[in-house]
Amino acid sequence: MKIVVVGGGAAGLGAAGAAQGANPTAEIVVYTEFADVAYSPCGIPFVHGKEIDSFDKLFLATKEQYVKSGIDVHYETTVEAIDTEAKTLQVQGEGTVSYDRLIIATGWLYADPGVAGTDLDGLYRVKDIRRAMEWDKVLETTKKAVIVESGFIAMEMTTALRHRDIDVTLVDPGPWPMSDVADPEIVEPVRQSWEDLNVDMQWGNKVTAFKGSGSGSLTHVETDQGDVQADLAIIGTHKVPNNPLAKAAGIKLGSTGGIIVDSHMRTSANDVFAAGDCTEIPHGVSNVPLQGLSGSHAYAQGKTAGVNAGGGQRGYNPVYVPWGMLAGEWMLGGVSFGETTAAALGLDFVTGTANGITRARYYPGTKTITVKLLAEPTSRRLIGAQMVGGEGIKERADFLGMMTRTGITVDEIATMENVYSPAIGALNEPIAVAAQNLVSKL
Amino acid sequence: MKIVVVGGGAAGLGAAGAAQGANPTAEIVVYTEFADVAYSPCGIPFVHGKEIDSFDKLFLATKEQYVKSGIDVHYETTVEAIDTEAKTLQVQGEGTVSYDRLIIATGWLYADPGVAGTDLDGLYRVKDIRRAMEWDKVLETTKKAVIVESGFIAMEMTTALRHRDIDVTLVDPGPWPMSDVADPEIVEPVRQSWEDLNVDMQWGNKVTAFKGSGSGSLTHVETDQGDVQADLAIIGTHKVPNNPLAKAAGIKLGSTGGIIVDSHMRTSANDVFAAGDCTEIPHGVSNVPLQGLSGSHAYAQGKTAGVNAGGGQRGYNPVYVPWGMLAGEWMLGGVSFGETTAAALGLDFVTGTANGITRARYYPGTKTITVKLLAEPTSRRLIGAQMVGGEGIKERADFLGMMTRTGITVDEIATMENVYSPAIGALNEPIAVAAQNLVSKL
Repeated sequence: MKIVVVGGGAAGLGAAGAAQGANPTAEIVVYTEFADVAYSPCGIPFVHGKEIDSFDKLFLATKEQYVKSGIDVHYETTVEAIDTEAKTLQVQGEGTVSYDRLIIATGWLYADPGVAGTDLDGLYRVKDIRRAMEWDKVLETTKKAVIVESGFIAMEMTTALRHRDIDVTLVDPGPWPMSDVADPEIVEPVRQSWEDLNVDMQWGNKVTAFKGSGSGSLTHVETDQGDVQADLAIIGTHKVPNNPLAKAAGIKLGSTGGIIVDSHMRTSANDVFAAGDCTEIPHGVSNVPLQGLSGSHAYAQGKTAGVNAGGGQRGYNPVYVPWGMLAGEWMLGGVSFGETTAAALGLDFVTGTANGITRARYYPGTKTITVKLLAEPTSRRLIGAQMVGGEGIKERADFLGMMTRTGITVDEIATMENVYSPAIGALNEPIAVAAQNLVSKL
Repeated sequence: MKIVVVGGGAAGLGAAGAAQGANPTAEIVVYTEFADVAYSPCGIPFVHGKEIDSFDKLFLATKEQYVKSGIDVHYETTVEAIDTEAKTLQVQGEGTVSYDRLIIATGWLYADPGVAGTDLDGLYRVKDIRRAMEWDKVLETTKKAVIVESGFIAMEMTTALRHRDIDVTLVDPGPWPMSDVADPEIVEPVRQSWEDLNVDMQWGNKVTAFKGSGSGSLTHVETDQGDVQADLAIIGTHKVPNNPLAKAAGIKLGSTGGIIVDSHMRTSANDVFAAGDCTEIPHGVSNVPLQGLSGSHAYAQGKTAGVNAGGGQRGYNPVYVPWGMLAGEWMLGGVSFGETTAAALGLDFVTGTANGITRARYYPGTKTITVKLLAEPTSRRLIGAQMVGGEGIKERADFLGMMTRTGITVDEIATMENVYSPAIGALNEPIAVAAQNLVSKL
């Protein structure tokens, strides 16, 4: 049995490892266009921001470890075509290569800004570690940067560039930071902390062109509200699935452009699986297909695809998408929808909000936290959450993700028990108080 | 309507506030033996340990605030008897006082060590803030202390005294720290951190007498394994309910000595409610009555009793007891049972453990964390958890508490989604990995 994986990110390597685990005698081959695998691209903004002192720290495993584990990684090798009937690939420099099972994990790209000048020098799409190492040297002499749209990585880069003392203008068509996922009052402390960092924020504005000098270097960015001088632009547009290969092979794509997969990560083609950001996954609350989730999702999907490709049986559930990040001086997070998105989708919901603290009021290091919950009034089930605070956001988002997925009512959450111990938790858990406030409105 | 509360701790004041909320025209009277209310006794060890710089910080509200809110607190006033037929109290200095509804919130005491010499000077039972202020001065000149048993507060005091550079011998009859709630491998890092702090730990040892000088001051502690010189002994025995008053009034007590209450915190006597550490509450998994829970439990029970005494309707559920604390250099926590307790109770269970990290491996400040889960093999439901780590223990204990209470299976937990973002969460959530390991053994 020969299992081939296209893509060396979290989904691809998760798949390769799981396929090997499920089928230890199988031949496992991974193709990647890049020079490296097994590093954490999510760490790149923090190296740029100097929170992490070296790109080397982002590597999780060495190439030798993969050789030793028996997974055959072909670096800097592009897969040019898939023939799902013949079960072969056209591989750059290798010709025709056969497979028994194929796993597509080709990931994502930044959406094309769709304006003139995107081929200029000075446009940085944060993604590949080798490019990041080169860009980090550019940042040494960068004076003025424009951040184009406030996606997750772009938000981290906004803070990172200010830590590098680079002037930053953030241009976003939305009315507030991350307006597609976060409610305005939740993200307000983040906006405020960027204001404190002297970020020039231009909400409701749109880039119309990138303009350069005769030598092809970026000099300024044209926007609806005028020109912004800049020698660097961070492209922070949303993720789009990287699927020219799957599309050309006739594999069925969905409305997002992601590969449609079933609960076992099988595509429309026989013996072809897919995982990670190149797929689309149904959202558990709305059943709307989602694309462009987290590295954790990609890894879990990869493992599912790998187990099944190896001959095992594993299902993958609809997603409820607990999320979280460091943003400005805050941690921001949530589950599924905020109020803005839920209203836009026409969902019926009631909200409950609580402001709390993470440890006893008098204990050193205690941080504030705001929790906002959304529930569907008939079923009284949680359908979303939004949070901002100084610690414990990730763990609470995981918790609320499970509450949403398992259909626990807000009545149940309102009476949850919570740990109280001055150094680690406050008398009142803000999740419980938010649920109590929500219940009182139902 | 006159609602009287006996006790000014978390349960008593929670009850008074909730009764007023439910019945704004009611007369609310609180009796307390102590000179203060509305402070956090749980913070005392951390003031002794100098993490918090003043006892004043532990006060949550001033006496004036209670006067203003219309809650009539009688300080340093002992309630001597209850007549549940006549609905009256005998109050020191006030004579016979009537009530329409009574809430008993008389709290807990440290169990009597049951040996000679407990009346000597130099035995400190950490509880009351005025006494703590006096004892804090004593600590300035204390050279050598014995900690008698490793209860929650005693564990915090162990660390606090070492921070004050006081020699500490810990004498506990159990085989390892907190052996009644924590499994040995979970608590081992805590034991190790105390070893690093040069705490002399004597497990499997028992105090047999406190011995003093002619002037009545403690000089040494006799134990099964010999004498320990000490000028201070911290009594860290388990909590017992403080119920002479309820018992004398003929109110029904349970097997733990706690007042038996129904789901609305009603006692066996008409119009008499009880809340907090003087009560016993059924455990959700085993149905065994529990006594001596946390301040958070006491407060929630107080609010329930107060709402119902005020004429409202609120239920209180069986408890699953998520718990957590700072212990040595670690955070320790769990839910319901560890393996040791579950085995002692004869429960059928399977365990799954995972060692993980709290942020990306390369991100500054990332901490290790160990999660151990116990599930009942037929229902595949979680029945307990144990954790030790550097951050995120409280939030995970709350999460696992809800998982246990709502009967979510370990299969569901094994496939939980988790937030991955380098600064706040790792790719793999250790709760999920522990559940996966558990499922693989089922």
